[in-house]
Amino acid sequence: MTAARYSVAAIGNAIVDIMGYCDDDFLAKHCAPKGSMRLVDAEAVQTLYSEMGPGIEISGGSAANTVVGVASFGGKTAFIGKVAGDEFGRIFRHDISAAGVTFETAPVNGKAPTSRSLILVTPDGERTMNTFLGISTDLDHGEVDAAVIEGADVVYLEGYLFDQPQAKAAFRQAVALAKKAGRTVALTLSDGFCVDRHRTEFLELITSGVGILFANESEITSLYETTSFDEAARRAARDTRLAVLTRSAKGSLILSDGKAHEIPVEPVAKVVDTTGAGDLYAAGFLYGFTSGCDLSTAGRLGSLAAAEIISHLGARPQTNLAELARSRGFIF
Amino acid sequence: MTAARYSVAAIGNAIVDIMGYCDDDFLAKHCAPKGSMRLVDAEAVQTLYSEMGPGIEISGGSAANTVVGVASFGGKTAFIGKVAGDEFGRIFRHDISAAGVTFETAPVNGKAPTSRSLILVTPDGERTMNTFLGISTDLDHGEVDAAVIEGADVVYLEGYLFDQPQAKAAFRQAVALAKKAGRTVALTLSDGFCVDRHRTEFLELITSGVGILFANESEITSLYETTSFDEAARRAARDTRLAVLTRSAKGSLILSDGKAHEIPVEPVAKVVDTTGAGDLYAAGFLYGFTSGCDLSTAGRLGSLAAAEIISHLGARPQTNLAELARSRGFIF
Repeated sequence: MTAARYSVAAIGNAIVDIMGYCDDDFLAKHCAPKGSMRLVDAEAVQTLYSEMGPGIEISGGSAANTVVGVASFGGKTAFIGKVAGDEFGRIFRHDISAAGVTFETAPVNGKAPTSRSLILVTPDGERTMNTFLGISTDLDHGEVDAAVIEGADVVYLEGYLFDQPQAKAAFRQAVALAKKAGRTVALTLSDGFCVDRHRTEFLELITSGVGILFANESEITSLYETTSFDEAARRAARDTRLAVLTRSAKGSLILSDGKAHEIPVEPVAKVVDTTGAGDLYAAGFLYGFTSGCDLSTAGRLGSLAAAEIISHLGARPQTNLAELARSRGFIF
Repeated sequence: MTAARYSVAAIGNAIVDIMGYCDDDFLAKHCAPKGSMRLVDAEAVQTLYSEMGPGIEISGGSAANTVVGVASFGGKTAFIGKVAGDEFGRIFRHDISAAGVTFETAPVNGKAPTSRSLILVTPDGERTMNTFLGISTDLDHGEVDAAVIEGADVVYLEGYLFDQPQAKAAFRQAVALAKKAGRTVALTLSDGFCVDRHRTEFLELITSGVGILFANESEITSLYETTSFDEAARRAARDTRLAVLTRSAKGSLILSDGKAHEIPVEPVAKVVDTTGAGDLYAAGFLYGFTSGCDLSTAGRLGSLAAAEIISHLGARPQTNLAELARSRGFIF
């Protein structure tokens, strides 16, 4: 096995977020379950956009946010995902490249627009996502660059891709390539409703060789169809080598080799917007993991990156995470 | 004279800001004078974009920011400015309309893209703007809706329009319509370098009937070609009915009827980004002025709105300014 060119290579939806504030009544009127991600079609996204307040456009996408976070810590990363040759596609490409992430998937012209997610942030800082997948659904196995996958310590996959039949093929191909090359496959379950839609396939994938599983409480309990977090955590620890379970304000739990590591949250003055909290936790953890930190330190780096991201609007860091980690006394 | 339909109607460049962080060396390398606005062509904007860090897209435009601010205080406003029928044009239209501003200028297809400004924010919070005017230069007198101008208490014009020969015609037409209808014409000088480029025409316009002149220190001293702020202020007070002069951290000075009102700044915990400070000061002042507040209260509302805008990234308010003003004990 040759040395890895990348700490983390990710496959995910390439999305530009359109972020705006709203109140709970607006979510209720539009039947958007608070805190969730739902898929909307071209017409619905247009209607919702016309009714929402002023927006701010920021590049997003769950796995894309994670590799940008790893890059901000100083890790070498790559991203595979589909954009169109339109303005949002150019914005996405600029932002992820400017963050230092290798992104070489070619744009597709004339089919569908670049994916966008209308993210509504309520006064409590919670985010509710309404995603129009657009050209993201066009991602298929043709886009999976074997050299990228085989050259990464960790291949990171976002569960949202399971909502797209073609992308699932890309996903499976990446897993096969990674396993053959002796690389670690990491999976994030992404969303409780998403898990609900694809439970059997997620379980098959996890038990067939996912090395690191990321999930929050609602995702892991949905996966194992239980109301008990403890039971879900036990089963996750049995099904995967490393289970990394986030619990919002309660911190996170890392389960490995029969041991449990409880990780506290990093305090924040005010939760402005929770968008990207899980993505950036994964970024900190994966940076620590691929840099040889112990699991508790990797978890603390996850908490640190999550704290940075929820203290401002949007899911891309506004602070250099390596400098932040150094200033907080984490050793590099 | 019939009652006004709008408190403020503005004519300005319709711009989407692409905001990113950089250090002083980056500005020096790109010969961008810190704190200024400079015009760049299509090629230069592309080069600079490819070299700058990740961005955040937020609607902007000086006069547009001002009417959005007035609307956030509760005033009825309208905006006249040119966008293309592209993604940035749709973003600009959505954001200003969702903020409650009437915006009916038709988009232009197939000529030039919607204007954008690459705004580089340095660690001290100062912003340096690199504006590609695109379709904004297409604004001409055909776009000036007489009903809007004649129906506004105050017609507000941004000095940046003087950089465009065609827009100048629209500008002059608006002034003529406003004066004929007995409305107040307000002008903001926009930028010291801009004043330098068009000093004679600015002076002609001001002395021929501008009722309210907004300027900061560098703009007013550039206008009167003096290094003395006091001298420039005296001359401004002589040339216009109401001179509203902002002085950054030193507060502002309102000169009218031989009286001077000194207005303190509103304290902020941390200056994140000064973009829009002047625009939002004008918003607060104009809302107060058109609501019948005394000049000092109008100035305080300006300071309040400026403080809100410099405490976050971007030149559009993230807080309802009417609620903010009520919470601070300003009477409505």
